[in-house]
Amino acid sequence: MRVSSYPLLDPDVAAALVLERTPVLDVEPVALADAFGRVLAEDLVADGFLPAFPSSAVDGYAVHAADAGQALRVLGESAAGRPFAGAVRPGTAARILTGGVVPEGADAVVMVEDVTLAGETVTVPAGLRAGSNFHPVGADLRPGERILAAGTQLGAAEIGIAAATGRASVPVRRRPRVALMSTGDELVEVGKKAGPGQIPDSNRWALLAALREAGAEIHVLGIAPDEPEPLRSLVVGALRDADALVTSGGVSVGTHDLVKPLLESLGTVLVGRVKLKPGKPFTFATLDGGGVAFGLPGFPVSSLVTFEVFVRPALRRMQGFAQLHRPTLPVRLAYDARPTLDRTEYQRVTLRREGSDLVAETTGSQSSSRLMSLAGAHALVRVPAGDRVLGKGSVVEAMILGLP
Amino acid sequence: MRVSSYPLLDPDVAAALVLERTPVLDVEPVALADAFGRVLAEDLVADGFLPAFPSSAVDGYAVHAADAGQALRVLGESAAGRPFAGAVRPGTAARILTGGVVPEGADAVVMVEDVTLAGETVTVPAGLRAGSNFHPVGADLRPGERILAAGTQLGAAEIGIAAATGRASVPVRRRPRVALMSTGDELVEVGKKAGPGQIPDSNRWALLAALREAGAEIHVLGIAPDEPEPLRSLVVGALRDADALVTSGGVSVGTHDLVKPLLESLGTVLVGRVKLKPGKPFTFATLDGGGVAFGLPGFPVSSLVTFEVFVRPALRRMQGFAQLHRPTLPVRLAYDARPTLDRTEYQRVTLRREGSDLVAETTGSQSSSRLMSLAGAHALVRVPAGDRVLGKGSVVEAMILGLP
Repeated sequence: MRVSSYPLLDPDVAAALVLERTPVLDVEPVALADAFGRVLAEDLVADGFLPAFPSSAVDGYAVHAADAGQALRVLGESAAGRPFAGAVRPGTAARILTGGVVPEGADAVVMVEDVTLAGETVTVPAGLRAGSNFHPVGADLRPGERILAAGTQLGAAEIGIAAATGRASVPVRRRPRVALMSTGDELVEVGKKAGPGQIPDSNRWALLAALREAGAEIHVLGIAPDEPEPLRSLVVGALRDADALVTSGGVSVGTHDLVKPLLESLGTVLVGRVKLKPGKPFTFATLDGGGVAFGLPGFPVSSLVTFEVFVRPALRRMQGFAQLHRPTLPVRLAYDARPTLDRTEYQRVTLRREGSDLVAETTGSQSSSRLMSLAGAHALVRVPAGDRVLGKGSVVEAMILGLP
Repeated sequence: MRVSSYPLLDPDVAAALVLERTPVLDVEPVALADAFGRVLAEDLVADGFLPAFPSSAVDGYAVHAADAGQALRVLGESAAGRPFAGAVRPGTAARILTGGVVPEGADAVVMVEDVTLAGETVTVPAGLRAGSNFHPVGADLRPGERILAAGTQLGAAEIGIAAATGRASVPVRRRPRVALMSTGDELVEVGKKAGPGQIPDSNRWALLAALREAGAEIHVLGIAPDEPEPLRSLVVGALRDADALVTSGGVSVGTHDLVKPLLESLGTVLVGRVKLKPGKPFTFATLDGGGVAFGLPGFPVSSLVTFEVFVRPALRRMQGFAQLHRPTLPVRLAYDARPTLDRTEYQRVTLRREGSDLVAETTGSQSSSRLMSLAGAHALVRVPAGDRVLGKGSVVEAMILGLP
């Protein structure tokens, strides 16, 4: 057993190093059906007018605005998808349905509620304005207009607008392929009885969920073998088809910890320890065969907090996200946030509204083993190293995991 | 063509009616690997202590605190998963690794950084405190303690803690099965050339994404037939295996709109119009065979806004979510939000930070056809019906879709 020889890096320095060494992945087309949550790789630019034709916003009659107050002869109908073939000349009108093409000649649409119908004659109200109740050509988009910027995550509206411009697929960045492994002789599979000194492997399932939220495709390697050679073969095999390796456990300095020596043999360990609580043993390496590796600590809270601070932004960088980090908001502390002298601390809090303020309450004991401190947490409050307490009532910028 | 005879309902009345008539779905077990995003159906309660044994927080030596400052004989090792078989008596110590069981007799752990080692003797510093550097039995959970409440959505930490207590699966509510259909003679499949008066079917893809985000399993029916009988057969078939039908288009009052008559023939139309902008033609029906139907307007923004206001909360109710609605936050308007006299309006805004404020800027023309007003929007600002402008600088509570 020895004291770690890795330098203790400032967490911001370590985070910058991780991003600097994490590659952005390739571009691939994705069908609209599978585009939800993906990240646009290129600006989307309109190549035509939207709408492409003057389109009625209501059910009613297409007319000349100058015919306001007149009785007009109804020539026919323009339904959605079934345009009226003729033209609307002064003194005439065409029935029109929502989404229908406003016929040639007409410059206004009157709502059905506002007309009086008698046989084939419709009387329209006084005071019509040209341009009423229809969407003119190009009202929504004109050729060359930027629709969406590269780096945008595709949600419902973004996918809708890509579809509205006729695209069946969009260019996105490939999802990162991540090999996920738990290490530790104490681990047993969930659902199996734990013997003396054993615990269920919980990190695998927590990290699987965190990786999924971050957009990764995951190859679960399970619990690592506790001998160096089988471990090495497993990892080398998995890395052939992975952009990143994520491990939990096995990165502290005990005699049985195998991850750091393994990463040293496969590449370059750039981060071996950070001034972070929880998460001091966090490890990051670049691999000689390409790809990167994240060695997360074994304690459940440490593994998820280092995931948030280092891994999630890196996975978002791989996918080309414009926004790599969680949003932040100012929160008012309802407790004294006591610092750790030599490490930046991420404290877990719940939020509640008080008037227009978000008030942050501690989730209780911040022990690195206590997942209850993270379950249901709405935010992480970053407490700088030192001896300055962030007193109750202080307003600090918190990393938002979810709003109350 | 006729004026609609459905009463114009207040949107809050309509929303309450929708939730009142939407059933909560059954409970099913889900494996941890598939639990991400699901909603817990029952409280999760601890049935044992966590940790189940006193567990070292560091690499070091398990000792008696009363032996502070002494040289102690090292008896053996307690590694994670490989407990030390003997007991630590006064004058002795055991090497211990992070996660290892603190042996019988020991009441403190000293970090490896703080000791002096000479052969099989370790000298520990003065001033040791009992209870240092290990997690006592039950520090994180005690039997009977509530771990997670029913209605909680399962994220990484929640899944982690379920695993830590040894569960391989958790009880969740079934995902709603939704049949999704677009209607409209003007629609063509994306990627195909649109003829005169035709437009690509964009709502299907936008709603598919919105449904996915809301947790649904989706059966895409495609573009509906434009004749009543084939349409009816398609829908009746799909409803055999669906909890809900979602349609877009075909709910206004034109001669070619088929959705409302169809829903009237299959069940009871409870909402036929709402005082909402965009989204006046929103329709909700209960179906005689069980299940519910949402008839969304055909304009892209109208369909997504009514999805947000009515459908998403209903789908969350089906899944047993404790929180049915989007979170809200106070935002300061950077524009004059002009109301509509007779309809509640949901205006789309982007947000930016100014000091500690969230400032809301309009996304531009709020036309119901203009998806660009919703793409990239961070929030919806609800503007009450009437003639009172919410002036620039007003602070209003906005429905948050995503933070900047």
